[in-house]
Amino acid sequence: MGHHHILSADQPSSTPPSTNTTIIDIHTHTYPPSYIDLLASRTTVPYIHRPSDGSDPRLIILSSDDDPSKPLHQRGRPIDKSYSSWAEKLSFMKTHSVSISVVSLANPWLDILPPTTALTTAQHINNDLNASCATQNAKNDPSARLYAFASLPLSATPDEIVSEIHRLPSLPNIKGIILGTTGLGAGLDDPNMDPLWAALESNSTMIFLHPHYGLPESAFGGAETIARSGHVLPLALGFPLETTIAVTRMYLSGVFDRFPRLRMLLAHSGGTLPFLAGRIQSCVEHERDFTSNGGHKQGPRREIWDVLRTNIWLDAVIYSKAGLKSAIEAAGPEGAGRLMFGTDHPFFPRVDGKEKDGEEDGGKWPSVTSNLEAIGGVGVGEEEVRGIFGGNAARVLGIEI
Amino acid sequence: MGHHHILSADQPSSTPPSTNTTIIDIHTHTYPPSYIDLLASRTTVPYIHRPSDGSDPRLIILSSDDDPSKPLHQRGRPIDKSYSSWAEKLSFMKTHSVSISVVSLANPWLDILPPTTALTTAQHINNDLNASCATQNAKNDPSARLYAFASLPLSATPDEIVSEIHRLPSLPNIKGIILGTTGLGAGLDDPNMDPLWAALESNSTMIFLHPHYGLPESAFGGAETIARSGHVLPLALGFPLETTIAVTRMYLSGVFDRFPRLRMLLAHSGGTLPFLAGRIQSCVEHERDFTSNGGHKQGPRREIWDVLRTNIWLDAVIYSKAGLKSAIEAAGPEGAGRLMFGTDHPFFPRVDGKEKDGEEDGGKWPSVTSNLEAIGGVGVGEEEVRGIFGGNAARVLGIEI
Repeated sequence: MGHHHILSADQPSSTPPSTNTTIIDIHTHTYPPSYIDLLASRTTVPYIHRPSDGSDPRLIILSSDDDPSKPLHQRGRPIDKSYSSWAEKLSFMKTHSVSISVVSLANPWLDILPPTTALTTAQHINNDLNASCATQNAKNDPSARLYAFASLPLSATPDEIVSEIHRLPSLPNIKGIILGTTGLGAGLDDPNMDPLWAALESNSTMIFLHPHYGLPESAFGGAETIARSGHVLPLALGFPLETTIAVTRMYLSGVFDRFPRLRMLLAHSGGTLPFLAGRIQSCVEHERDFTSNGGHKQGPRREIWDVLRTNIWLDAVIYSKAGLKSAIEAAGPEGAGRLMFGTDHPFFPRVDGKEKDGEEDGGKWPSVTSNLEAIGGVGVGEEEVRGIFGGNAARVLGIEI
Repeated sequence: MGHHHILSADQPSSTPPSTNTTIIDIHTHTYPPSYIDLLASRTTVPYIHRPSDGSDPRLIILSSDDDPSKPLHQRGRPIDKSYSSWAEKLSFMKTHSVSISVVSLANPWLDILPPTTALTTAQHINNDLNASCATQNAKNDPSARLYAFASLPLSATPDEIVSEIHRLPSLPNIKGIILGTTGLGAGLDDPNMDPLWAALESNSTMIFLHPHYGLPESAFGGAETIARSGHVLPLALGFPLETTIAVTRMYLSGVFDRFPRLRMLLAHSGGTLPFLAGRIQSCVEHERDFTSNGGHKQGPRREIWDVLRTNIWLDAVIYSKAGLKSAIEAAGPEGAGRLMFGTDHPFFPRVDGKEKDGEEDGGKWPSVTSNLEAIGGVGVGEEEVRGIFGGNAARVLGIEI
């Protein structure tokens, strides 16, 4: 495929945000140097291989990347300084008129830490993120501010994890946490997660739920089938399906009944939750194990719709009007007011490598403009479009604009 | 949950189809008696257990149903005559003002036949379906007509399968085929499927793609996690995710490039394909293995959007406006013109068992009315609503109304 037209030809062309719109990017990742070092010290997925010829390190992050038939320097993806440099992040923001980024560690976050040092490493990295934001924000440049979602030391003891949740409000640039779908190892419906949910709820911490672990390879027909199309199956499908399953398991196990004020921001517009919410609700209402005649198991007490409209916000990283319309509808009366713009930087870069060459398109990334165009063309009012671009994130995360 | 409100309170209430609208149900299943006997002769999933006390047979269709800790007469679901009786089908149609049904065998269709007898069994069952429709249609009752999707003998030889595809046009009440996602056993991207695609394309056969096999249990955290909520995870998520993966694998492997006139009707509004199409397209365009610089694998030549607008139709069995809006948008310029009403009868029956008692709601099934209401309230014009209810199926499948 030689050209980019992620939005098909018959979709309306871009409605670029007007100049007085503040764009906040709530889905943007970074690997701080200390975290890169940590991955480079590992030899099993996830790990970083530093080729001896000095070329860009390779990030082998998915098990499908770790193809033993390839030499190490061809596995995974090359990671350039866009993965770790603040200057690159700010340059990317300028190119796309993003004035505020809420950065988060990319997967697999701190899920991989040795238990005994997990808490201190997490404190160190969260402090570091907060300090990097503070340094930038001290410049008082309204077009380049940084905030962050912290990461939790999930391999530490429950008390230690909870202690870190309670410490985060003391870090002024931390606006929530990013969380994977495995929790303490057994998923987000694990009852052992309850102390974490309780602490997160009591602090009104926004939980940015993000996929990483995907689906078992057999779901896609096995490793050989997956390899025929590179990362497409695990990234295009595995990621959003993982998010959908994780949140549905939380819902079915009653997490949102026990913690009705949890606040979650779902990556990739909820995976596929907005599209499937009707089917989930119907299956719950028809489930023989839950219904009163002979029902012997406790189903969720709240409707999934109520959870979507009370506990859940969605990013707008879905690359189409077809996805956005579903997300806005599922969000209920607040509609577009529960969506927030994101880029997924530094992933999905230009494939032509021309972002630095003063291109006619200003070096913009098609992965970003496709989302900008979808938001502009989705058919909601100008005020709501401005909300998705930044107003909603400002209001919900407490960011001054 | 003591009451039914699949559409949440703030969604507009029903817009019932006007009296001059013909409703065609293209997603409605039957187990002919000969097929019930076949399942009853088996002792591994899928199978039917006939309790010795004369109570309704139990259908154990998903591996999660086959819980060895339960006695056989408590496994799976009870199947009453709604699964096999034409009178029950017609009664259900009358209750819901459906005047034409295009019935199909329910999963797992003929995937389980011994190879040596697969072709003759398929011929027998397809002939039987055609004859049952003919008997009903000979009554010339415009409010109760029947057509069918045939099933293929997928365990037979390729030549035999192709012979059955070519025989089907001789059966006047057969309007296409129903197909699961495993094909010959290795998925729909298996190159050995090409002779089947060629035959189906040359006959312009509509392929009703329907899930059954779900996802591996580990995708949901294992059997114990699944069992906590009965069938909800495999049915609410496993089914649509299976469809999404199957079609995406077809797309990625170039089936729609090699067979650009294939016609597919996707169950459950495409699984989640409409919602994820943008992400699939973006991942394809960013896949390093496909792109020209160093790309060494052939990606799909057509955009997924083009496939959605040329090769794919969607049923409207998605139980929400949030899902329907996405499906209509993804269908492109034809929009609602590519959607067709369905009920999924006899699945998702009333849980209160009151359909026979002259209830105020006329004994209607909430699983059906939720889809009727979503279609009526989705915000397309009256003509398009009528198209979804029946006009589209009539035009696309060649049914006179």
